[in-house]
Amino acid sequence: MTKIAILGYGTVGGGVAHVIDENADRVRASAGDDVAVKAILDLRDFPGDPHESQVTHDFRTILDDSEIRVVCETMGGVNPAYDFTKQALEAGKSVCTSNKELVAKHGPELVELAKKHQVSYLFEASVGGGIPILRTLEGALKSEKIDEIAGILNGTTNYILTQMEEEGAAFDDVLKKAQELGYAERDPSADIEGHDACRKIAILGSLMTEGYVDSEKVPTEGITKITAEDLKLARACGATVKLLGSCRQTDEGLEIMVAPFLVPTEHPLASVRGVFNAIAVHGNMLDTSMYYGRGAGRDATASAVVADVCEIVKNAGKTVPVSMTDRPSKLAPAGDTVRRFYLRTDGSGKAEILSAFSGSTEVPCEACDASAILTAPMKESSFLNILSGLAGVKNWMRVLDE
Amino acid sequence: MTKIAILGYGTVGGGVAHVIDENADRVRASAGDDVAVKAILDLRDFPGDPHESQVTHDFRTILDDSEIRVVCETMGGVNPAYDFTKQALEAGKSVCTSNKELVAKHGPELVELAKKHQVSYLFEASVGGGIPILRTLEGALKSEKIDEIAGILNGTTNYILTQMEEEGAAFDDVLKKAQELGYAERDPSADIEGHDACRKIAILGSLMTEGYVDSEKVPTEGITKITAEDLKLARACGATVKLLGSCRQTDEGLEIMVAPFLVPTEHPLASVRGVFNAIAVHGNMLDTSMYYGRGAGRDATASAVVADVCEIVKNAGKTVPVSMTDRPSKLAPAGDTVRRFYLRTDGSGKAEILSAFSGSTEVPCEACDASAILTAPMKESSFLNILSGLAGVKNWMRVLDE
Repeated sequence: MTKIAILGYGTVGGGVAHVIDENADRVRASAGDDVAVKAILDLRDFPGDPHESQVTHDFRTILDDSEIRVVCETMGGVNPAYDFTKQALEAGKSVCTSNKELVAKHGPELVELAKKHQVSYLFEASVGGGIPILRTLEGALKSEKIDEIAGILNGTTNYILTQMEEEGAAFDDVLKKAQELGYAERDPSADIEGHDACRKIAILGSLMTEGYVDSEKVPTEGITKITAEDLKLARACGATVKLLGSCRQTDEGLEIMVAPFLVPTEHPLASVRGVFNAIAVHGNMLDTSMYYGRGAGRDATASAVVADVCEIVKNAGKTVPVSMTDRPSKLAPAGDTVRRFYLRTDGSGKAEILSAFSGSTEVPCEACDASAILTAPMKESSFLNILSGLAGVKNWMRVLDE
Repeated sequence: MTKIAILGYGTVGGGVAHVIDENADRVRASAGDDVAVKAILDLRDFPGDPHESQVTHDFRTILDDSEIRVVCETMGGVNPAYDFTKQALEAGKSVCTSNKELVAKHGPELVELAKKHQVSYLFEASVGGGIPILRTLEGALKSEKIDEIAGILNGTTNYILTQMEEEGAAFDDVLKKAQELGYAERDPSADIEGHDACRKIAILGSLMTEGYVDSEKVPTEGITKITAEDLKLARACGATVKLLGSCRQTDEGLEIMVAPFLVPTEHPLASVRGVFNAIAVHGNMLDTSMYYGRGAGRDATASAVVADVCEIVKNAGKTVPVSMTDRPSKLAPAGDTVRRFYLRTDGSGKAEILSAFSGSTEVPCEACDASAILTAPMKESSFLNILSGLAGVKNWMRVLDE
C-alpha cells in the first residue's frame, strides 16, 4: 500500500481523490501496488466529504509523516507551492503536479532536487491536461530527433475561436458566454493574452531541447485582436485561426512563440474544436504525430496526475528521468523563419499592400466586408519591415505550413 | 553496448538499421546504453549495403550468439516468424516485432513464453505504425477504465476513401492509382477487405480487455461496396466515410468489428486524411483522447520497433508487462448496439424505406443522383431485420456517435 498526500483540495485535487477512489483496481494494476490518500492539505474544512477526516491545515503533518511517499501538488501558483515542493522532495517524498506556473519558473531546480534525493518530480498534468504528451516525449518518442512541436495548448481560447467561427460572433460576446459557462475565468487575461499557453510551450521546449526555456523570454501574443471578420477571411483562405504554442529547432537555435496562426484546413490541428487541446510533434523518423484530448477539466487533469503517481510507485527507489535541465536553451531570433503571412485590410490600402509584398495575392471572400491578402513565403523580419511602412492593415497573422 | 539482430531485411527491417544508425545518440539517451546491430537474417545478400557483412542466411548463428540480447522480427507472416520468435525467447532473447499477423494469432503464447524466460515480447509497431498507442495504453492510460477504442487502422483504405471524396472518383480507379503509387499492394485484398484492420483491432481489443480476442471471430467488412455517390451523400449528411476498427465494452461483452462508418465531420477521426492513421480512446476519467500519425512507411514503423528495443534495454533483466493473456475476451453479439444507420437508395423504394424505419429522415443532396436516408437510433438487429424485407437499398453503413 502506497500512501499519498494531496496539497490543495480544489478542482484538480478533488479530482485526484476521485480518480484514486473510483479507479482503485486500475490504479493498482498500473502502479503495481494499492494507492490510498492519507492526508489532504487545505485551508478549508470539508464537512460531509468522504475524505473529511484526512484534511489537515498544517503542511508539517504531511512532511513529518514518513508513511506518505508521494505528494500531489495541485495548489497552483508559485507560492507556497514552491516551498512545499522543495520541502517534500528534501524529505524524500516524490512530487507530481499540475502546476504549470511553478514548473515553468522553477522546474529545473525541482527536477535536480528530486534526483539528489532519489525521488521524482513529474508534471504530466501541467501541459495538455489529460493528453499524455510528456510521457510520450520521454518514452516512445525519446529515440526521435524532434525538430518541431506545435500545439493548441489552451482550451478557453480554442473555445472562443471555435465559437467565433461557428456563430460569426464578436470576441467580447463569446468571451462573456465562455465566462458564464465557466470555460473562462473572471479575469481571463492569462488565457486570452496567451500567458497560459506560453508556460506550456516553454515546458515542451525545455523537454525538446533537454534544457530550460524561460517562459518570460517567449514572445507571446493573445487572441484579443482577432475579429469575426478574420475568421471568415481565414475560411476563404482555406484555413482557420488557432492560438498555437510553437517551437521549432533552427540552425540559429530554438524559435519559440505563442501567437494566433492561420492553420490550413487539411492540417490535423485545424479540426481541433472547442475546449479540446492537441499537440503535433514532428520527428525525423516518425514524421508528424499528434496527440489530442481534453486540455483541462477535473477528471482529465486528475487522471494525468494519477498516471504520474503510478509511474512513481512503479519506479519506487529510482528517479523517473525528466529531460529538463538548468542549461538555458539557445533561442533563435523570431525574425529568421520563412513563412507566409495573412493580412486583413478594409480595402483602403489594398493596392499598395499587394504591390509592397511581391508575390502576394488577394483572396476573394463574398461574405466579407474586408479583404484577405496572403504573402508569398518570406522572412518574418522582412515582413515586419515592409509592414511598418504600410497603412490600411487592420490585422495580420502568421500562416502555419501544411 | 547492447547487440541486436534483425530478422528480415526488407522495408521495415532496413528501416530499423537506418534508425539505429541515424539516431544513435538519441537511441542511447532513450535506452540508457549504446545499441548496435550485430546480425541480420535474410535469404538475400546485400552487396554494397553498410550492413552487408552482418547478413546471415542461418538463424542459428543469431540464436547461438549469446551477445545478441534483442531480436527485431520484421519478417511478417506467421511462418517461420513464429518458430524463430519462440526459439529466440526460449534462448533468453527479447523480441520486438511489427508482425501483426503473428501477434494476432499467437500473441498470448509468445507473451507468456517471454515472461517465463524473463525477457520481453513487444509489438508496438504492429498497430498504427509510428503511433505509440500500445505504450500509451500500457502506461499513461493504464489507470483508466477504457470502454471504447475506434481507429482508422489502415492507411491504404483511408487513402482510397480520401481520394474518392476529394476527386469524386470511383473505387476501382482510385485503387489502381494507389497501386501505381505503391500505397496499395498488387493483391490489395488484405487492405480493402478489412483483414489488416481486423488484426489490429483484435490486438487493441485484447489489450483493452486484458485477454485475447481471436481476430477470426471479429466481424469484418471492407470498403469495396463504397461508391463515390456514398461519399457525396455522406457529406450531405455532415459526415465522411471511414473504415474503422471499433471495440466497445458493453454489459454483454466486447462488441468488436471492422466496418465502414459514417463519421460526423466534427468527430476528430473525420479529419484524418490520406495514408494517416488515428486511434480514439475513451476512458472513464480522460474522456476522449486521440493519437494520430503515419500508420505505415519504413521509418515511422521502424521507429516504433526501435522504441520497443529501447524499452527492453532500459528494463534489462525484467519482463516489460503486456496486458494480453490467453483468457478469451467475452465478445458481445453485434446486434445489440443502438446507433443510427445510413442507407443509399436510387429512389425507387424511397417512400417504402422511410415508412419502414420510423423516425428516419431523407437528407437532401443536390449534387447526387441517389438519396440518403438516416434512421433514428435503433438496435442493429432490428435494423437488419427490417432491412431484409426491403427492396431498393443500394448500400448501408453504421453511423458513429458524435
